Amino acid sequence: MISLEQNILRGIKQVLGNSKEFTALHEPEFTGNEWNIVKDCLDSTFVSSVGKYVDRFELVLAEYTGARYAVAVVNGTAALHIALLLAGVRTGDEVLIPALSFVATANAVAYCGAVPHFVDSDWSTLGINVPSLGEHLQQSSQVEDGNLINRFTGRRIAAIVPMHTYGHPVDMSSLLDLANTYNLPLVEDAAESLGSTYKGQHTGTLGLLGTLSFNGNKVITTGGGGAILTNDDKLARQAKHLTTTAKRPHRWEFFHDEVAWNYRLPNLNAALGCAQMESLPEFLRLKRQLAHRYREVFEGINGVEFVDEPINSQSNYWLNTLRLNEPSSQLRDLVLAVANSAGYQCRPTWTLLNKLPMYADCPRSQLTVAERLEASLINVPSSAALARNCYKSDA
Amino acid sequence: MISLEQNILRGIKQVLGNSKEFTALHEPEFTGNEWNIVKDCLDSTFVSSVGKYVDRFELVLAEYTGARYAVAVVNGTAALHIALLLAGVRTGDEVLIPALSFVATANAVAYCGAVPHFVDSDWSTLGINVPSLGEHLQQSSQVEDGNLINRFTGRRIAAIVPMHTYGHPVDMSSLLDLANTYNLPLVEDAAESLGSTYKGQHTGTLGLLGTLSFNGNKVITTGGGGAILTNDDKLARQAKHLTTTAKRPHRWEFFHDEVAWNYRLPNLNAALGCAQMESLPEFLRLKRQLAHRYREVFEGINGVEFVDEPINSQSNYWLNTLRLNEPSSQLRDLVLAVANSAGYQCRPTWTLLNKLPMYADCPRSQLTVAERLEASLINVPSSAALARNCYKSDA
Repeated sequence: MISLEQNILRGIKQVLGNSKEFTALHEPEFTGNEWNIVKDCLDSTFVSSVGKYVDRFELVLAEYTGARYAVAVVNGTAALHIALLLAGVRTGDEVLIPALSFVATANAVAYCGAVPHFVDSDWSTLGINVPSLGEHLQQSSQVEDGNLINRFTGRRIAAIVPMHTYGHPVDMSSLLDLANTYNLPLVEDAAESLGSTYKGQHTGTLGLLGTLSFNGNKVITTGGGGAILTNDDKLARQAKHLTTTAKRPHRWEFFHDEVAWNYRLPNLNAALGCAQMESLPEFLRLKRQLAHRYREVFEGINGVEFVDEPINSQSNYWLNTLRLNEPSSQLRDLVLAVANSAGYQCRPTWTLLNKLPMYADCPRSQLTVAERLEASLINVPSSAALARNCYKSDA
Repeated sequence: MISLEQNILRGIKQVLGNSKEFTALHEPEFTGNEWNIVKDCLDSTFVSSVGKYVDRFELVLAEYTGARYAVAVVNGTAALHIALLLAGVRTGDEVLIPALSFVATANAVAYCGAVPHFVDSDWSTLGINVPSLGEHLQQSSQVEDGNLINRFTGRRIAAIVPMHTYGHPVDMSSLLDLANTYNLPLVEDAAESLGSTYKGQHTGTLGLLGTLSFNGNKVITTGGGGAILTNDDKLARQAKHLTTTAKRPHRWEFFHDEVAWNYRLPNLNAALGCAQMESLPEFLRLKRQLAHRYREVFEGINGVEFVDEPINSQSNYWLNTLRLNEPSSQLRDLVLAVANSAGYQCRPTWTLLNKLPMYADCPRSQLTVAERLEASLINVPSSAALARNCYKSDA
C-alpha cells in the first residue's frame, strides 16, 4: 500500500503536472499593463511620496473592496500597526489575536506597546474560533468602568483582530456579535484575503478598520505594500496623517503635530499596484479554477482533505491548503520533505505565535484546535498561472 | 535701492535662468539605466523580499561608502529606528539629537520608547555644535555605574545622533572625541549626505552605525528607501535580522526569535537604486558645479551668504542653502514668498523640533544658534540637472 505522503505527492502531481523544474508556492505575474504603467511613472520622475499613482491606487482599492477609504502604505505590517493605534490600542493594553497567524499580527500589537492575547482557531475556517473566544472572555474578563479587563492580568482588552487565513473568511457575523457584546473595536487583518468576501462584503470592510498586504507572495503585489481600509471619514484622515509624518499642509513650512510614521507607499510601488489591480479578476478566476482542481483530486485521497471556502464566504484561495485528518507534525514534515524534494514548494502553517520566545508569556485561551491545525496544515503551490495547465495534466 | 528679497530673487535667476515654468527644489533624474534595470526586475518577477537587486544594491552602497556592510531598508526613518535599537537605545533613555533636523530624527528616538534631548547647532556646519554640547553635558549630566545620567531627569543618555544637514558634514573629529569621553555610541543620520565625506571618510561610516535615505527628494532615489551602514559584523547581521521579521533560516519553518520589523527594501526599489548609483558620480559633479555658481553669484549680494561646505569636508550639496546675515523669520518668509511666487521652489529649514507639540517638553540645551539658523536658512533649487544650464544663463 502506498504511504499517505506518497499519495499526497501523487495528488499534487496530478493537479500540477510532472514538474520538471521547481514549482514555487506563490509567484507574482506581470503580464498586463505593469511595464507601461511603471515606465510612465519613471518617465514622470514622480516615483516617491508624491504622484498620481498613490491616489489612483487608493481609489481603485476603495472601489474594489467597497470601503469608503483606502490609505496605501509601505506594507501590511505598517497598515496593521496604524489601524490598531486608530482603534485606540495603547501601551499596556491587550489585543485578542489568533495564535495561528503570521508573526506580523503579533508584532503590530507589540509596536503599540500592547500585549497579544492569543485565542483559538476554528478547524473549518482556520480563523478565530468564535464560540471558544466567547467562553474564554466570559471566564477570564470583566467590564470595569466601561472597559473590558482581563481578570488575571488586570490589563484592558482593547480590540479583536480576526485574520482571514490563506484567504478564507472568518465567521464574521458571530464575531461581530461578540465584539458588540463586549464593545470591542474589530480590526480585520485582511493581509491574505484581497478578493475574499463574507456574505458579499469584502473582507477588511466589516470591522472598524481593515488592512491589506501586497507583498510579493500575495494575490497581487506592489513589491512591498499594504493599505488601511475604513468607512470612517475621520479615521481615514487620521490614517493618512499618521502614515505621512503628521505634517500639517503648508506651502513651505515644516510643522508636524504628533509622533507619526513614514509609512506612505512610494508612487513607483503604487504604479505597479494599479496595473496589478487590472489583472486581479483574472487572477481570482484562475486561482478558483486551481482550487477546484485540488478539491477534485484530493476528494479521492484518504487521510487528507482540501480546505474549502467557509459557508457564506467566497475565498480568494490565496494559498491552497491541505489538512491531515489526523494531526501529526511528523507526518506533516514527511509530506513537506517529499513534496519539496520533488520540486513542489510546500510549507507548514506558522509556528503558533505563543510558542515564539518573545510571546511565550503572553495571555492566551486554550488553543486545542490551533495546536491540531498546526500539525495538520500544508500549503501547496497556488500561483494563478498554474491553473492554465491544471486540466491538461489529467491524463 | 532694491530690497534684499528682490536682490536674492535676482541672484537665483542669475544662477538658474528666467524660469518660464516651475523650478522644483529637488527633482530626481532617470536618464541612465533605470528603465533597463527596473524592466529586468519586473521580467524576473522577483520584485519583493527576495531578489538579486537588494544584494547588489547593498554591495554597491558598501563599496561606495567604504562601510563594511550596508543593509537596505524601506526608508531612512526605519534605518535610524533600527540603528538606534542596535546602539542600545531602550525605553526611558534619552538620545542627544540636534533641534535643527527633520522630524524623522526625533521620531526614530520615540519609536524606541526613548526621549529626544535637543542640542544646539553650529552656525557654519549647520550640524551639532560640539563645544556647546560639551559644556551642556558637563553642566547637566554625571556618570553613574558607567552610565551617563541626565541630572535633571534622572534618565540615561544612551547615544548621540549627528545629522549632516543638507549634506554638510558635522565636525566629526571633535564630536567623536566628546562621544569617547562620555562613552556614548554615535549613530550618524546621513539621510541627506550620500556622497559627502569628512576627512576623506564617507559620512555615516565614522560612528558605530550610520543611516542613509533614498527618498524621492534625495541625491539618488529608490522611490522610498534607506540603508543602515556599519563596520561591525555582528551589528550588520542583527540589522538584517531585525529588519526581516527575525525569521530563523529554515527550508520551510516559520520561527521568529524576537520582536522585529518588516523593514526590508523591496527588490523593485533596490533595482532602481542600482541604476541610480551608476549616475551618482555625475549627479555629484553637477551639484558641485551648481553650488559653485550659487556661491559665485551670492558673493556679490550683501546681507546674505551661500552656505559653503565645512573645512575638512566635501559636501554633496544636497540642498543649496542661503543664510541671512541677520536672522529674521519675517525677512526669510518674504524671500520665500517672492521666490516661490516667481516659480522657484524655495523653503525654510525645519521648525525646530523642540517647538513641535509632541516634543515640547523634552530636555534640551540652550539652542541660541539653532534659533538663529531657523530664522536665517533658505533652501534654493538644487537638482543636479539645473547645473547643465547654469553657466549659460549668465548673460
